[in-house]
Amino acid sequence: MLMLTHEARLQALREELKRRDLQGFIIPISDEHMSEYVGEYAERLAWLTGFGGSAGFAAVTLDHAAIFVDGRYTVQVRDQVDGNLFDYRSIPGDSLGGWLKEVCENGARIAYDPWLHTWNWVASLEKQVEPAGVTMVPADSNPIDTVWADQPAPSDAQAIVHEEDLAGRSYADKRAAIADWLTQEGHDAVVIPALDSIAWLLNIRGGDVAHTPVALSYVIAHKDGRAELFIAPEKVTPELTQHLGNAVVIRDRDQFETALGEFSGKSVSVDPDFGVVGIAQALRAGGANFTFKQDPTILPKAVKNAREQQGHRDAQAQDGAAVSRFLRWLEETAPSGEVDELTAAAKLEGFRRAHGDLRDTSFDTISAAAGHAALPHYKVDEDSNIPIPPGSIYLVDSGGQYPAGTTDITRTVWVNSADGSARPSAEMIDRNTRVLKGHIQIALAVFPQGTTGGQLDILARQYLWEAGVDYAHGTGHGVGSFLGVHEGPQRIAKPSGGQAGTSQELFAGMILSNEPGYYKPDAFGIRIENLVLTEERQIDAAEGRYLGFETLTFVPLDRKLIDKTLLTESEIAWVDEYHAKVRALIAPQLSGDDLAWLERETEAL
Amino acid sequence: MLMLTHEARLQALREELKRRDLQGFIIPISDEHMSEYVGEYAERLAWLTGFGGSAGFAAVTLDHAAIFVDGRYTVQVRDQVDGNLFDYRSIPGDSLGGWLKEVCENGARIAYDPWLHTWNWVASLEKQVEPAGVTMVPADSNPIDTVWADQPAPSDAQAIVHEEDLAGRSYADKRAAIADWLTQEGHDAVVIPALDSIAWLLNIRGGDVAHTPVALSYVIAHKDGRAELFIAPEKVTPELTQHLGNAVVIRDRDQFETALGEFSGKSVSVDPDFGVVGIAQALRAGGANFTFKQDPTILPKAVKNAREQQGHRDAQAQDGAAVSRFLRWLEETAPSGEVDELTAAAKLEGFRRAHGDLRDTSFDTISAAAGHAALPHYKVDEDSNIPIPPGSIYLVDSGGQYPAGTTDITRTVWVNSADGSARPSAEMIDRNTRVLKGHIQIALAVFPQGTTGGQLDILARQYLWEAGVDYAHGTGHGVGSFLGVHEGPQRIAKPSGGQAGTSQELFAGMILSNEPGYYKPDAFGIRIENLVLTEERQIDAAEGRYLGFETLTFVPLDRKLIDKTLLTESEIAWVDEYHAKVRALIAPQLSGDDLAWLERETEAL
Repeated sequence: MLMLTHEARLQALREELKRRDLQGFIIPISDEHMSEYVGEYAERLAWLTGFGGSAGFAAVTLDHAAIFVDGRYTVQVRDQVDGNLFDYRSIPGDSLGGWLKEVCENGARIAYDPWLHTWNWVASLEKQVEPAGVTMVPADSNPIDTVWADQPAPSDAQAIVHEEDLAGRSYADKRAAIADWLTQEGHDAVVIPALDSIAWLLNIRGGDVAHTPVALSYVIAHKDGRAELFIAPEKVTPELTQHLGNAVVIRDRDQFETALGEFSGKSVSVDPDFGVVGIAQALRAGGANFTFKQDPTILPKAVKNAREQQGHRDAQAQDGAAVSRFLRWLEETAPSGEVDELTAAAKLEGFRRAHGDLRDTSFDTISAAAGHAALPHYKVDEDSNIPIPPGSIYLVDSGGQYPAGTTDITRTVWVNSADGSARPSAEMIDRNTRVLKGHIQIALAVFPQGTTGGQLDILARQYLWEAGVDYAHGTGHGVGSFLGVHEGPQRIAKPSGGQAGTSQELFAGMILSNEPGYYKPDAFGIRIENLVLTEERQIDAAEGRYLGFETLTFVPLDRKLIDKTLLTESEIAWVDEYHAKVRALIAPQLSGDDLAWLERETEAL
Repeated sequence: MLMLTHEARLQALREELKRRDLQGFIIPISDEHMSEYVGEYAERLAWLTGFGGSAGFAAVTLDHAAIFVDGRYTVQVRDQVDGNLFDYRSIPGDSLGGWLKEVCENGARIAYDPWLHTWNWVASLEKQVEPAGVTMVPADSNPIDTVWADQPAPSDAQAIVHEEDLAGRSYADKRAAIADWLTQEGHDAVVIPALDSIAWLLNIRGGDVAHTPVALSYVIAHKDGRAELFIAPEKVTPELTQHLGNAVVIRDRDQFETALGEFSGKSVSVDPDFGVVGIAQALRAGGANFTFKQDPTILPKAVKNAREQQGHRDAQAQDGAAVSRFLRWLEETAPSGEVDELTAAAKLEGFRRAHGDLRDTSFDTISAAAGHAALPHYKVDEDSNIPIPPGSIYLVDSGGQYPAGTTDITRTVWVNSADGSARPSAEMIDRNTRVLKGHIQIALAVFPQGTTGGQLDILARQYLWEAGVDYAHGTGHGVGSFLGVHEGPQRIAKPSGGQAGTSQELFAGMILSNEPGYYKPDAFGIRIENLVLTEERQIDAAEGRYLGFETLTFVPLDRKLIDKTLLTESEIAWVDEYHAKVRALIAPQLSGDDLAWLERETEAL
């Protein structure tokens, strides 16, 4: 079959819109579950436009089309998307509502897929475009799916049981807790569309979405403790049926919309960030009294229990050995100039497979050489791939999905020149040391119960600010247990930065990344990332409950990029103790040259 | 005339409510301008209940009465208010709405003075009590005023001109800026009820309110640059009339409500935090189209110009000499055990009068000995006054109103025993040093434009948190220029602490207090407070604009309470440099024993 050009695809979409008497359509990056990573069938924006970034959307009318991306993708969108077909628009400066008002005639009917947008998103857009006489219309089916002839089918991967000795809590217990919550809040049922929430609640995992081991499904949990799981029958194994038992009714995913119509007069809750318009419409059509309220699994999912905590430690030990071997290999091999970014990423994945029970990478590895490292979200592909230049900084941000836990680590290392003579610049060492100091301040932070990630953020930035520089991303995100590498509700970031979660109180058991950085455009980039576990601290004569962090990630930090004279005594002590723990944990898994390298790299500063 | 008992006052109020066919009345601490400090005529809550605190309110029905105060006043309210007359209620745990629903019958009409409550406050209360069939009714006149026979008349102090060489900007220029703002925002006029906003806008001051040099008045500013000042005629001097010139129409304050009725069809803006219900009602009754929007003088008032900045430095130099002489006097005199809290406060005010152009204290001096120092808002009076015990910690938080600037300083000092043998405990020294470390981190902070006080707050708390302790107040408030000692919109505090201003971006020119503390109930209290001026920082190779603080307050810190071994090198350097500046600035104003004391106290650590 012929591959259609993007021009032909756009043309086909417009023909379909005309057939439906619609004047436009919105194409987001999203699936029906508002997932961060989506299955191939849902990659409609990429199919239509060629854009490969992880955030953005397009809007198409019969005469105009535009693609909206944020500052991270300004360059990439121009490389990947044809400017003759799509105008480039920059969010948040440009708004979809503003663009629609500009290009649409009074009376225009602009469609959206009601299963790919939240209620609030559509309500806000409607308010913007209404004065211009533009109406937002939910499409009966997605017009892209109609014209995308070779659209991949949704994955048919089987759902699997997540064993209780890893989950640390039975699904019966979790369901009972949700039932209690429903009773307390006065609801009859809660609709759970978020795939990781379903996985956590029922202790199941799946293989339908890249990097996140979840199964495409929906749950409706009832206040009597019953739950209904809506899932494609081919995903259901006898083991799953046995695991779920009598209290969970397994229904075909196709019946979900019908089931939403069965709550006449009942009170039903749905999360505003995951409850798409389609869900709300179906509930309303069936006469349910629905309320937007945070998914009740989100907070307990974020607070890891003792088994999950131990799982993370176990996964990190394997992961740390793999990353250490990779760094040793890189140190030896890269000065030749013959290692490129893709090779390095593949090599790293190989070490992970060799060292642990790796099921997937937890996201696309950021393998970034030289100036590429200055792009915090750089994604290497065949087009962008470059050899790692000897005598440069290389940044690698990667993670693994292990049944025991999800990892995420960034190391920034100096790659020697072939003759070993090249040295990092004073600026590189200064910036890396300041990033390290901030990383250490987060690692050492002690704070009362009630503190939010928005309050802690400055601890990571203060030494960079002293030098008049900063980084344009958050300091830390939540991480799941063999689930999403980005998991809410907590976050360490600037409160004014527009990222959700900075006002969430931290609780013992929450896992966060600790990843300050610094980026010099077109020159180099630095990021130091470990995961940390929030833990309760016993302090003599403490007035109230205090918390701190246990660092979970153990891989050497590159000493060539550290200026010891910029560190305080307690910071030097932290580095030395950290490296001593790295050695204790990782050395037993290594041998020969790898072990010698580890011992050298973990000596006291 | 006989002083009525509180029982008789409450009885008289209830009779008045019955006469008006009302079932209850709310009594706040507030005047028509939502001032922090009010004139005596407005001290209705104190008259009715005996309560002398600075925050709280009472509600009276025909059969019930309650007084609502926060945690600071739990003890004080029980001392001052008769529990047989008023139930004690604790905010925010107990709510007025909840109490009204509890004690009122369906159909009850509860009155409030529409000139003493903001629109949002009443709207929120109405929403709470409506389900119980309770209606909130604006009173035609305040029923307390009807029954308070010897209510003081409002002050008749004259308004005075604030010279342009202190204000640094002409009132014509300020009015023009407001006119530009009105044009930009599409309003015809703005109503300004906040007394310090009026004082700033017109470059006038007054003497109608304790501690804040403002004149009771209202302003309506029009988009053509005209302004109307509503003020009692007896306050208007020929100098004032000449100063204001033709562009300001002076009208009797009694005409204000009528004037609000003259905006039929016009767009009028009023600040939601200062626009009381009475203003909104009068605007609405006159057919105005009114909008709640932040008072446009608030931000420019907070950003001090070069003259105002210099004025603060000048005022601080005088103030620092006075406080230094006081501390020398205290060190010499207090070990006898014969200095009490009131004497000390009076002595300090005397030094201030001797050393500078003092017009008033900027708030009631907190002169707190021993356990009293553990109450952050302790107010000494004849009943609470105690001798300062030799061999104890004494805390003094005080400030002066000088035409050049407003000051606010706290020092915590060790008072020797008569034989000089008593020493502060290890705990006192540890806590004081941690408070000092936090104070220094704020003083040294460097941060990008866009940073808020809510982000900086943790810098002041981190070393206390490390020891498992904290303080239950903000770290810093804005300060006016010969205006309010508490001035918005900026604040350094926990973002989740419910205090306004933590999400306000800081700008160069803003003045803030820097006042971390620690309080051990019934034992001792510590607070170290200097004022700081936000300033732009020039940093080599900075990416973007960076800010920092210039410390404005110069008085020695008590070395007996500092453990040098807990300080880092850069913290020791800060203390030594600070003391060197204190000596350079204050020494020329002292002589004899005072000078010798200053030289000793400002030696390097």
